[in-house]
Amino acid sequence: MDEINSLRAEIDAINLQILELLSRRAEVVVKIGEAQSQQGLSHYDPAREEQMLKDLSKANKGPYPEATIKKLFKEIFKASLDLEEQQDKKVLLV
Amino acid sequence: MDEINSLRAEIDAINLQILELLSRRAEVVVKIGEAQSQQGLSHYDPAREEQMLKDLSKANKGPYPEATIKKLFKEIFKASLDLEEQQDKKVLLV
Repeated sequence: MDEINSLRAEIDAINLQILELLSRRAEVVVKIGEAQSQQGLSHYDPAREEQMLKDLSKANKGPYPEATIKKLFKEIFKASLDLEEQQDKKVLLV
Repeated sequence: MDEINSLRAEIDAINLQILELLSRRAEVVVKIGEAQSQQGLSHYDPAREEQMLKDLSKANKGPYPEATIKKLFKEIFKASLDLEEQQDKKVLLV
């Protein structure tokens, strides 16, 4: 159990690093969303999402299979789109 | 559009860093899974997942709301469990 506990401490540290990167990513997403709204562009851009998934699949060395990486990032993209739409609502309310 | 492209380059760089952390996390998960199998322990541990979600919610400073962070990490936990179960099958086949 000691080995498991020490590996779990590693997971805890990595979780916090992932959270930090997700938050930094979301901050950039909000800026992109603002620029898109100013220019009258749609937030949803399937070609851009496809390109990101292609780049990630190419860079993936495992242990997660490609399908899992795609699934996880699609969730991140969806969360980002939700954030941009929330941001638009906030702007409308101001 | 130049501003959007430059922000997108930032996103691309962060995506690769998230991929790297997810992969490192998955390597540790595989080790935990092996230790659990050797000790006859279940891979699924809802109390441990609950604790990780609690820690992440506490550390979250936005812009993602707590519910989004929980949702994204639950997907990561699910992918990890799948990986451990795949690993068990590989061991059985050897």
